[in-house]
Amino acid sequence: MSSSSEQSPGEGFRARLHTIIFEADTPAGKAFDVALLGAILCSIVAVMLESVASVRQQYGLALYVAEWVFTVVFATEYVLRLMAVRRPLDYARSFFGVVDVLAILPSFLSIVFPGAQSLLVVRVLRLLRVFRILKLGHLLGQAEVLMTALRASRAKITVFLVAVLSIAVVMGTLMYLVEGPAHGFDNIPRSMYWAIVTMTTVGFGDITPKTVLGQFVASVLMLMGYGILAVPTGIVSVELANATRLRPDTQACPGCGAQGHDLDARFCKSCGTGLDWKGHP
Amino acid sequence: MSSSSEQSPGEGFRARLHTIIFEADTPAGKAFDVALLGAILCSIVAVMLESVASVRQQYGLALYVAEWVFTVVFATEYVLRLMAVRRPLDYARSFFGVVDVLAILPSFLSIVFPGAQSLLVVRVLRLLRVFRILKLGHLLGQAEVLMTALRASRAKITVFLVAVLSIAVVMGTLMYLVEGPAHGFDNIPRSMYWAIVTMTTVGFGDITPKTVLGQFVASVLMLMGYGILAVPTGIVSVELANATRLRPDTQACPGCGAQGHDLDARFCKSCGTGLDWKGHP
Amino acid sequence: MSSSSEQSPGEGFRARLHTIIFEADTPAGKAFDVALLGAILCSIVAVMLESVASVRQQYGLALYVAEWVFTVVFATEYVLRLMAVRRPLDYARSFFGVVDVLAILPSFLSIVFPGAQSLLVVRVLRLLRVFRILKLGHLLGQAEVLMTALRASRAKITVFLVAVLSIAVVMGTLMYLVEGPAHGFDNIPRSMYWAIVTMTTVGFGDITPKTVLGQFVASVLMLMGYGILAVPTGIVSVELANATRLRPDTQACPGCGAQGHDLDARFCKSCGTGLDWKGHP
Amino acid sequence: MSSSSEQSPGEGFRARLHTIIFEADTPAGKAFDVALLGAILCSIVAVMLESVASVRQQYGLALYVAEWVFTVVFATEYVLRLMAVRRPLDYARSFFGVVDVLAILPSFLSIVFPGAQSLLVVRVLRLLRVFRILKLGHLLGQAEVLMTALRASRAKITVFLVAVLSIAVVMGTLMYLVEGPAHGFDNIPRSMYWAIVTMTTVGFGDITPKTVLGQFVASVLMLMGYGILAVPTGIVSVELANATRLRPDTQACPGCGAQGHDLDARFCKSCGTGLDWKGHP
Repeated sequence: MSSSSEQSPGEGFRARLHTIIFEADTPAGKAFDVALLGAILCSIVAVMLESVASVRQQYGLALYVAEWVFTVVFATEYVLRLMAVRRPLDYARSFFGVVDVLAILPSFLSIVFPGAQSLLVVRVLRLLRVFRILKLGHLLGQAEVLMTALRASRAKITVFLVAVLSIAVVMGTLMYLVEGPAHGFDNIPRSMYWAIVTMTTVGFGDITPKTVLGQFVASVLMLMGYGILAVPTGIVSVELANATRLRPDTQACPGCGAQGHDLDARFCKSCGTGLDWKGHP
Repeated sequence: MSSSSEQSPGEGFRARLHTIIFEADTPAGKAFDVALLGAILCSIVAVMLESVASVRQQYGLALYVAEWVFTVVFATEYVLRLMAVRRPLDYARSFFGVVDVLAILPSFLSIVFPGAQSLLVVRVLRLLRVFRILKLGHLLGQAEVLMTALRASRAKITVFLVAVLSIAVVMGTLMYLVEGPAHGFDNIPRSMYWAIVTMTTVGFGDITPKTVLGQFVASVLMLMGYGILAVPTGIVSVELANATRLRPDTQACPGCGAQGHDLDARFCKSCGTGLDWKGHP
Repeated sequence: MSSSSEQSPGEGFRARLHTIIFEADTPAGKAFDVALLGAILCSIVAVMLESVASVRQQYGLALYVAEWVFTVVFATEYVLRLMAVRRPLDYARSFFGVVDVLAILPSFLSIVFPGAQSLLVVRVLRLLRVFRILKLGHLLGQAEVLMTALRASRAKITVFLVAVLSIAVVMGTLMYLVEGPAHGFDNIPRSMYWAIVTMTTVGFGDITPKTVLGQFVASVLMLMGYGILAVPTGIVSVELANATRLRPDTQACPGCGAQGHDLDARFCKSCGTGLDWKGHP
Repeated sequence: MSSSSEQSPGEGFRARLHTIIFEADTPAGKAFDVALLGAILCSIVAVMLESVASVRQQYGLALYVAEWVFTVVFATEYVLRLMAVRRPLDYARSFFGVVDVLAILPSFLSIVFPGAQSLLVVRVLRLLRVFRILKLGHLLGQAEVLMTALRASRAKITVFLVAVLSIAVVMGTLMYLVEGPAHGFDNIPRSMYWAIVTMTTVGFGDITPKTVLGQFVASVLMLMGYGILAVPTGIVSVELANATRLRPDTQACPGCGAQGHDLDARFCKSCGTGLDWKGHP
């Protein structure tokens, strides 16, 4: 999260603030992160509980107060973060900067639009920030492998989604003509919704074909969805295999710098130094 | 789409028409493609909206007029395309030639058969033509990889579909005998529909087993479908892996023409020229 | 299917019968197979149609007659097959011999137990025999690859099924205790049926959790099923990849007998003879 | 299950008891295991039958007696096991020691809390112990391969689960705001339950979107779930492929001890001794 060590020179207060807020290596920094983690989880649970009618009737006021307390806490934290970095505007525009604003905005919105406070659950995204204190740092490495695999598959997945939507348009229209509004296929958008529900094998059953011809078309669509389901799975499998396979080539021995170790190598083949075997912990 | 450069010699008008309609490199050609893309999307949305009862009652006439305007526009475009190519009959028989006719036919059909205009959604296929203007040209390369993988799996998928249908026949009949018309399994075709809904894990729930024996047979069918689901996924995964793995062999270095580069090579191993790394953009 | 050339020496009639019935190379043999294919398909359609109440009321007698005609035809064919082979008992005990008997038995059973004629759909298995006449011979090669992959995965799939059933027992009981008969979880076997429906992601929706705790347990089960779904898919993918990868090692060049060609080799690397590239047609 | 041969020296009775109870090589040990297998299966079936109302009314007393007989038998067996090992406390703390207690506890609990005897189905876990007598020993090897694959994927699966839960929180809240209590989305926890049901493609259909906007959001969630479904499958596939690929490196030739044999090698490449080809039986 930004090369903080260069951003905070000997400016005293800002440097200390930065260490506490942005880093988790010092006791103070770690305590701050643990407190933040607790506050985020509590505030999400509070929002969820408030949506339950029976809880709201009994503890409505307490939850309302809690919501505003958390909002004030997070707003203060946001201001401190802006003060701790050298270029506040850069931080405000970064991913976490935007998430921080989104995490306090709904409370103020709820004054004008009642109910908007449910949007506070977006605070769940703030949890990404405190992963490291749970020693989940290596998880981020894994997430990166996943993201690399997904990004490499982007073009294939787009082709795939366009194909799925085109099939949904054509098959949805066909079912609208075959079954008609009498059997729940009220219009083409609704039939497309049914086609997507069917192709993804979700199958809610709120709309189902009643005629023999409709059931035949649905069967064809299902078997098609079956085959289509295989494509994204295959894509991600291959890309994940590639992402994993590419690892040894980018991993240099910490001892001698030699590369090209085997996938299952635990020791450098040149000098015998133990390799950091992240992939299989 | 067809080697246009040889088809259009110095015949003046036809050559210009061809450049505008079939190519997207010139400003005029690009403007034409963008306009066409807009027209196709608008006409599909119009057909969809017309199927919604409340919209039809209010804007029925406007949508009816729009539908005919788009039909006339697309018919004109079709005639221009026929004029722009040297061998009109060849074009009329090609995939896009047939799609072009299908995209205007339903309007005329709807004069005789009311409701046929819903078939106009087939215009969605025309979108394939304008992919390139969105700089989605490389997507077609990806689609080709997918198609290669699917084509290579054709025989395995046929075996798989025959197996699925045979199981649907046998298990559907079994459930018809076990549950009977009293529980929704009215006849064998309907039971086969249920078997396919179950095996593909769609599970609408419009027909469900009620007896203990029926629920046991259904459980067996589900676990079977589970294993069967794995087969097409596995097939496509393997073929996709093969299709990806074969790439380096067909990719020659743009500098020296050397082949056989590693899957993850970014530079030619003979002369160091940067390789066009399409697979992982 | 069986090394017929050695079984039929110069015994005249039996040899000719064998050629017609068991082989598809001669015009007579091919005509026999095509007629048989038609008869099997017609008889299956007849059984299906008979199960549809409205059709049965109108054409019941015709379908009844057709059923017995097909039964007599298939019985005659079975007797001829027994006569055409040297060791009739061996044939009667073989897979196809048993299927042939199963294909005529239900008709006679239906005299004693009305409704048993629905079992005639087992005739669908007889179609396996006539695959070759449709030039689908190479499909059997593909089916063999699939079967090899499945057989190699047998032990892993058994472990997997035992795990799934154990989870179904434990989670089914848990839901029976949490939700109880009031919400459709009448007893443990029924709850196990629900657990299997949920884990396989079929999700009929005939039984669903109503309490908050039940919905929580169900969510855990679903996410578990998600991960479990990945196991058979992964197993079959890996085995299919192995089955495909092993091919080059077992394929000798038809010209010089050299082995160990690359997966994508189209020509022998020793002598340049074209290789039979079955895997990717 | 612990290196028993060293634990039981010449202490006579304990050694004999250990051989019978913990091993299956002697006739007495095998008979004990078979009897235990039967007792476990019978006791599980008894618990299941007791949950069926109609069976309970008729055979309630018999099942109650059977339950206590099995409990006494298993309690005795547990005491014998404790006597047979040198360090009883170590055994009591081991996995199977805990399972043994859990298998008798619910009977005593049911005296205080009626209905608790359903928990006796946990006895299904005891079956793990008697796998070997069914010559299913090699299955445990397979289970180990699966476990290795799953363990290696642990970090990736955690990332995946966190991602799924975060999406469930955000999308569930969105649907709660869009559809509201009027359409079954009563509160955020219930909406999250719906989001998980939808993302895992289970799709019970007990709660379904009714508004156009809700159906659109649901469609997006389904297609997202589609892509997400691919991730765990891909992960497990890759890890399974690795787990299989690593095998030859750990398998030494029983003849000369050479390692590094090819995946499909059936004979040692150094001395020609037949290799134990567990992976593909």
